[in-house]
Amino acid sequence: MTVQINLSEENSYKIYIEKLEELNFDRKVVVVTNPTVSSYHLEYLKSKIKAREFTICTIPDGEEYKNMQTLEMILSSCFEARLDRKSLLIAFGGGVIGDMTGFAASIYQRGIDFIQIPTTLLSQVDASVGGKTGINNKYGKNLIGTFHQPKAVYIDSSMLKTLPKREFGAGVAEIVKMAVTFNKDFFIWLENNDLNKENNIDIAIQKSVETKAWVVSQDEKEQGLRAALNYGHTFGHVIENETNYKMYLHGEAVGIGMCMANALAVKLNLMSSEDARRVEDLLKKYDIPTTYKIKDVEDFYEHFFLDKKSSNNKIKFIVPVGIGDCKITDDISKNDVIEVLEGF
Amino acid sequence: MTVQINLSEENSYKIYIEKLEELNFDRKVVVVTNPTVSSYHLEYLKSKIKAREFTICTIPDGEEYKNMQTLEMILSSCFEARLDRKSLLIAFGGGVIGDMTGFAASIYQRGIDFIQIPTTLLSQVDASVGGKTGINNKYGKNLIGTFHQPKAVYIDSSMLKTLPKREFGAGVAEIVKMAVTFNKDFFIWLENNDLNKENNIDIAIQKSVETKAWVVSQDEKEQGLRAALNYGHTFGHVIENETNYKMYLHGEAVGIGMCMANALAVKLNLMSSEDARRVEDLLKKYDIPTTYKIKDVEDFYEHFFLDKKSSNNKIKFIVPVGIGDCKITDDISKNDVIEVLEGF
Repeated sequence: MTVQINLSEENSYKIYIEKLEELNFDRKVVVVTNPTVSSYHLEYLKSKIKAREFTICTIPDGEEYKNMQTLEMILSSCFEARLDRKSLLIAFGGGVIGDMTGFAASIYQRGIDFIQIPTTLLSQVDASVGGKTGINNKYGKNLIGTFHQPKAVYIDSSMLKTLPKREFGAGVAEIVKMAVTFNKDFFIWLENNDLNKENNIDIAIQKSVETKAWVVSQDEKEQGLRAALNYGHTFGHVIENETNYKMYLHGEAVGIGMCMANALAVKLNLMSSEDARRVEDLLKKYDIPTTYKIKDVEDFYEHFFLDKKSSNNKIKFIVPVGIGDCKITDDISKNDVIEVLEGF
Repeated sequence: MTVQINLSEENSYKIYIEKLEELNFDRKVVVVTNPTVSSYHLEYLKSKIKAREFTICTIPDGEEYKNMQTLEMILSSCFEARLDRKSLLIAFGGGVIGDMTGFAASIYQRGIDFIQIPTTLLSQVDASVGGKTGINNKYGKNLIGTFHQPKAVYIDSSMLKTLPKREFGAGVAEIVKMAVTFNKDFFIWLENNDLNKENNIDIAIQKSVETKAWVVSQDEKEQGLRAALNYGHTFGHVIENETNYKMYLHGEAVGIGMCMANALAVKLNLMSSEDARRVEDLLKKYDIPTTYKIKDVEDFYEHFFLDKKSSNNKIKFIVPVGIGDCKITDDISKNDVIEVLEGF
């Protein structure tokens, strides 16, 4: 199946959710990947791609390498391969690979094309829509980057067979996020269908991607509605930061973060505790963590202000309104938040 | 006077050619400059700008610092000043400052606003239109960068009083370039008016900027017509490269390059030798070099292929057709080029 992403001008593209078909490129191609993905899937990819010239750039695996130094490695590969303005970069891996390859493509000779072949569930449902690229630095995550849309995204869920169970769960957390914030029917479908079945995961990917595409098309540069995609992230980022990005996968921290946001919504009478429980149950079905022991609640609260999305010293919270709707607000009192955190 | 630059969507902006008026910004501002510009003009600038917070980032002066390391200095200043997505960068200096500040603005938190206050004639006529940003690396000049349009450009030609004569000439070379390729009337006006007079330089800046704006509006991302702006540059880049960027200023190398392109045009019967002489005379009036001793003609020719604009192993030449028109072609035989270079 195919999802059309409609954006301004020449930025529109298609997401293909199906077994990878043969791809023919009459231009030079550099594929960016990491040793893990490459050991499982590179031969498969090679068997599908025809290009004028074809170079592999292998970068180290892990969020800690999502930095300027690795970006320069990718750019050097492009220069060594003598890519010109008509050449193509392919991101072949998870979110880190996608974000860095997209960033490299956006600044190599002032911008060349790239396509994404995401290999993790998280990157398939989340990173394949939105055009956000970037790297981390000592000031925070994704603070340097661009908006640069891929020319196409190819999602082949058969590659998920080699994905560790925890990483699968981290992807499911983002799927649940899309359902809770925007689509009640989808949420009910998720309650009743097992995503470990191949056909179901394709449907869930499609639904997530379609929902995110709709949100992004309303707000390509993140001025308003798109902030709703940060449901679970305001809390999740603090959790990741407090645990030095070592204890939880991003999607797992978001899972906990959604439960925190739900608790806040319950306190504000925006969500019933029964609905909050349904979300928690769905996450637990995929062994996604839903609890977290906060050491110091005041400290946790202060952490919000380090996030780049909090301009003017106000924190933007995304709280669900029942299931299938949500509210973006920077008007929640510190007392309410502190009480919820203490009770969590 | 004001020149309106009409580009797609929210990319349009105005160029103000006049004494700097008071500028009020209700946001945080980082001004990027270098020690030379700052010693002459920073107090003047400070007297004109009101902002919520105001930080100066001073980077070293010179093309050799137009690299990733200096870019990271600028970005660090932005982080230390805690700029958010609504903050503003101001480029206050010549082309190097403009290109790097624009690049930093385009990747800081995925893109923030910047304005240009160019202080050299070259950057006033050339870098203020086009939205090209970038840095150099060991593979070549401006190979990493983005297209990112400023929100406004303020050209105050009174700052040119402190500009060394050679740098003034380098700027005039780019003005002559615009006239020869696109505007015969403007060329005749240049033959009859002295640019050292303040009123005249404002007119020349305006004409150049208008001409370039027209070209760029036809071709924002450099697919076609915009290549004509490289008149003199195909040769000029080789000269700069052969002399390690030490002997000539960029505009001076372009001056010589235009004379080479003219010689080629004369050989191809596209330009009379009298017109070629008129261009040379005009350049000489401002002490812009018009001759260059080529050591090894074959070697010089091979250098063309290292330029990023030569895709598919064809070299794109911009040759004038008389005065006021030009032709973009990759269809000139090596023999013709070699003969012209030998005769130069």
